Amino acid sequence: MTRNFADLLTKRMMGKNCRCVVGLDPRLELIPDVFKEGGSVEDVIVFFNQTVLGTVSGIVPAVKLQIAFYEQYGLAGMAAFSKTLAAARALDLVVIADVKRNDIDSTARAYARAYLGGAGSSGTRGDFEVDAITISPFLGVDSLMPFVEAAEENGKGLFILVRTSNTGAAEIQELRLEGGDCLYEYLARIVNKLGVRSVGECGYSAIGAVVGATAPAVAGSIRRVMPRAMVLVPGYGAQGGTAESAAESFGPDGLGAIVNSSRTILYGEGVSSVGTTGEYSSIVRERVLRMRDELNRAISERRG
Amino acid sequence: MTRNFADLLTKRMMGKNCRCVVGLDPRLELIPDVFKEGGSVEDVIVFFNQTVLGTVSGIVPAVKLQIAFYEQYGLAGMAAFSKTLAAARALDLVVIADVKRNDIDSTARAYARAYLGGAGSSGTRGDFEVDAITISPFLGVDSLMPFVEAAEENGKGLFILVRTSNTGAAEIQELRLEGGDCLYEYLARIVNKLGVRSVGECGYSAIGAVVGATAPAVAGSIRRVMPRAMVLVPGYGAQGGTAESAAESFGPDGLGAIVNSSRTILYGEGVSSVGTTGEYSSIVRERVLRMRDELNRAISERRG
Repeated sequence: MTRNFADLLTKRMMGKNCRCVVGLDPRLELIPDVFKEGGSVEDVIVFFNQTVLGTVSGIVPAVKLQIAFYEQYGLAGMAAFSKTLAAARALDLVVIADVKRNDIDSTARAYARAYLGGAGSSGTRGDFEVDAITISPFLGVDSLMPFVEAAEENGKGLFILVRTSNTGAAEIQELRLEGGDCLYEYLARIVNKLGVRSVGECGYSAIGAVVGATAPAVAGSIRRVMPRAMVLVPGYGAQGGTAESAAESFGPDGLGAIVNSSRTILYGEGVSSVGTTGEYSSIVRERVLRMRDELNRAISERRG
Repeated sequence: MTRNFADLLTKRMMGKNCRCVVGLDPRLELIPDVFKEGGSVEDVIVFFNQTVLGTVSGIVPAVKLQIAFYEQYGLAGMAAFSKTLAAARALDLVVIADVKRNDIDSTARAYARAYLGGAGSSGTRGDFEVDAITISPFLGVDSLMPFVEAAEENGKGLFILVRTSNTGAAEIQELRLEGGDCLYEYLARIVNKLGVRSVGECGYSAIGAVVGATAPAVAGSIRRVMPRAMVLVPGYGAQGGTAESAAESFGPDGLGAIVNSSRTILYGEGVSSVGTTGEYSSIVRERVLRMRDELNRAISERRG
């Protein structure tokens, strides 16, 4: 039997009783100086990420790398991206790449090869291979199919953008269509349908969706349209989403979703002035534990 | 005065009397063997691209790199991407990266930095810097703004996806909204508005759009909604778009658009069996000249 991404993620979430994913988004202007002594851009990013990974790997089931923050540093950034993937895998973390890719037929297949397996020569792992990626539905179902096929074939996961966490998301994604649905509902139906074949033993599908924590009413109605989808929830913390609003994307069993936080965990108050990497780790550790507990409490109260 | 991307592209198009852009999409399985002798993946791609660049640089104003075909080869592919950009710039070609990126606020800014300038340390050029990129509007206007601002600041261009060339595009992009517009019309209005400040002396805006050659009626109606937008037209050739359908995206002055072809120029019949790189060049040269002439004829007949 092929492994199923939703089962893998669920198992890890249950094992750690944690529904958080930490975003590894390197931003040199925000990384504390203590990580920067004498290293190249690549070295600094890898050192920083390894420290975070070492700190959170015992707590969270997964990490998410926002690839834009690596691409901005060119080839050095992409090398750091690839090394960070390897470091995360070595710690048995589920690795999600937030790439929001999409394109037509043969091009979509090239992206799928890059991130979902098959890129390495003669069966080896490609430099950018991960467990799951985010993709955009804007080009239609035919553009999603190469990703769905690659996910099915290689036991990988997809999070298709349905309702993002930004303020302006509503402008497009909440457009009301002739017939009464909003665009996000139309998309959620597509995700639900594409995911049928990939529902794992956990009851959720490896073909999932991105639904922000910043619009809880919308999130609740999306969850009803696609009850089986594994949901990646961005927008918690710095963007204004709360544990209660993130909880809207979970299923009645308290599973089926994972909540991301990047900035709120890695940066912000008290971080820029740390004197040692150990001091930084303590701050990150405390923040992740708080997020885990807040989220578990909100989900348990909701199931109540 | 800052340079304007639309003026730059228009000047090059007029100088060469050519409205074609050649897509540099490396696919090892389709690249003739004569380019593969003993080289690494990076070497093969760079050698192949340099040959194509040398062949077409006297004919076309611009080249377009579909980044998915580089990402699929991991770090070697990205290095080849960066080297190809440098080679194209050295030949004074306008360079478009087809990246279809998009994300929220700080993440969109990171992408903008990667591709539209500001990524290199102390004013140097970043590894992935180009003249223009394609971006997706799915996350709303706020997600487009960091790209628009970077384009304005650095004299770069944007092609915002409005109607793509794939068969399934209609499924999302032609959804009819409450009120009567199709989604693509709604998006074209956004592009038109975002582009006002970036209209160059040529009469077209550096904030442009992607409109496929595969739906000519749609392309005509989009052009009416955004008369000033510089349009990138994919879908010519292998995807079924003709010179006549591509012509629908041009303005009444026969400018304001550029038509891409990748597969039809680089691969297909007669290519896999070439005995020398010179033989390959001749085929590519002939195909590009034919495309240029067909397009010029169709545009001139339409203005007729």
